[in-house]
Amino acid sequence: MSVWQDEIHEGNGGRGGKTRIGVLSSRTLFDERSAFQRVRIFETEALGRVLMLDDLWMAADHEEATYHEMISHPALTTAKRIERVLVIGGGDGGTAREVLRHPGVKHVDMVEIDGMVVDACKTHMPKVGRAWDDPRLNVIIDDGVAHVQNAAPGSYDVILVDGSDPVGPAVGLFNDAFYAACGRALTDDGVFATQAESPTLMRDVHVQMWGALEQVFSVVRPYYATISIYPGASWSWLYASKGTDPLAPRAERVAVAEAESYYYNADVHHGAFAVPNHVLRAR
Amino acid sequence: MSVWQDEIHEGNGGRGGKTRIGVLSSRTLFDERSAFQRVRIFETEALGRVLMLDDLWMAADHEEATYHEMISHPALTTAKRIERVLVIGGGDGGTAREVLRHPGVKHVDMVEIDGMVVDACKTHMPKVGRAWDDPRLNVIIDDGVAHVQNAAPGSYDVILVDGSDPVGPAVGLFNDAFYAACGRALTDDGVFATQAESPTLMRDVHVQMWGALEQVFSVVRPYYATISIYPGASWSWLYASKGTDPLAPRAERVAVAEAESYYYNADVHHGAFAVPNHVLRAR
Repeated sequence: MSVWQDEIHEGNGGRGGKTRIGVLSSRTLFDERSAFQRVRIFETEALGRVLMLDDLWMAADHEEATYHEMISHPALTTAKRIERVLVIGGGDGGTAREVLRHPGVKHVDMVEIDGMVVDACKTHMPKVGRAWDDPRLNVIIDDGVAHVQNAAPGSYDVILVDGSDPVGPAVGLFNDAFYAACGRALTDDGVFATQAESPTLMRDVHVQMWGALEQVFSVVRPYYATISIYPGASWSWLYASKGTDPLAPRAERVAVAEAESYYYNADVHHGAFAVPNHVLRAR
Repeated sequence: MSVWQDEIHEGNGGRGGKTRIGVLSSRTLFDERSAFQRVRIFETEALGRVLMLDDLWMAADHEEATYHEMISHPALTTAKRIERVLVIGGGDGGTAREVLRHPGVKHVDMVEIDGMVVDACKTHMPKVGRAWDDPRLNVIIDDGVAHVQNAAPGSYDVILVDGSDPVGPAVGLFNDAFYAACGRALTDDGVFATQAESPTLMRDVHVQMWGALEQVFSVVRPYYATISIYPGASWSWLYASKGTDPLAPRAERVAVAEAESYYYNADVHHGAFAVPNHVLRAR
């Protein structure tokens, strides 16, 4: 028997009320509570396997490529060096997979706070995390905030923050001290990128993150794409650097990304950095 | 008592299964069957008033601006002349409203097949159609396909097709003969734009429309934005002309559009024309 599984959004853009995004599921493959959150994976016909953390959709087989490409390739195609990469969060393995497509990447530390997410995704969502066996990938089950604070200055060329929303275990990823620590852990020509919430339903958080990153980095630019299973369906990331230009990707790395990408290409890279008028006005 | 109102999508991208996009509604303001379709308007807290035709979301107070700006301003900012504009469909009045913001527009024929949609929206969705009283607007309740076929050659500077999906009353808006008639009804430096379905869930239709327009127009370019209440949440339009460049908007008209827009601006205009890799591969 199939049942609807929904993510319900309350207080949309400060207006109150509820909307929902649902998918008809034929089977629950995993449902346990970790020390941090409830971890569920559903089998669905429309979206393939779908991961839900607490009551929020995180990834689906057929709606994960755009997110993982967009958190990875703008940074990976523009940073001067990309040998040492840190991924914070990203327990489903999709971000590490995209990062590791670049042959210039020599080592990826992926620091995920919740080992249950990694284990459940390895077993039940193998289509997302396809690079678990890459010898360049070092999975660390630990607090990403502490990891960055303890990292030696300049120890990473690229830092990608693939955390969940600013409630629950990921709340420490949304504050000034964390961004400052990321700035220290990056090389001088390194690049930082983070998911940055819905510019429509969570515009306040999005704009606050933008401003907070500007306290640490000289270049901060938001970029956007559609992720149908996320609140508001319009999603954002923030690119930050100490001078590296987000709009000057290296052609040979773009070609690597384009070769297997679902969404990303050179035009998409440039177009994604257009900021909607309502976001500009809210700054 | 509040009830969930959902649009259910079946057979997502050819995969089968169901997803849904719902909104909690406190009241049904209108629910009648016209000669063409079931017309419903719901009161909701999250999205304001919401229009549903048959079982498909069409517009909502808080999720209509992006759609109506994007179907209008790329064409209106690039066409050489914009004095005479034809809107086909657009019964909620949102597209006509955006068109009429341009002072260079002297006359708009809005040809909507279903008078019940216009009447219901005038009464129950006044926040969308705010230009009904503009003396430049001529609302015609008629078949848009017949209207274009009967139009004198070169009688419009801009034609915008704001129809629903290629089922039901709008099916005639999705074929070669209709596009050819639009080409004849346009001036030589006129611009045509149409909504072009979801590039994810209805990619086949999207790509077919692109190819069909290329049989009539020398310049055809798709463009994209997020519309959270539409299937797949990623939405598209197609821009077509007999030579006019979609990427050369006139600054003074962009400034007019930007002054009151929610989403559209010069960067958005350019960025929207980036085509996702999966669409390029499907061509």
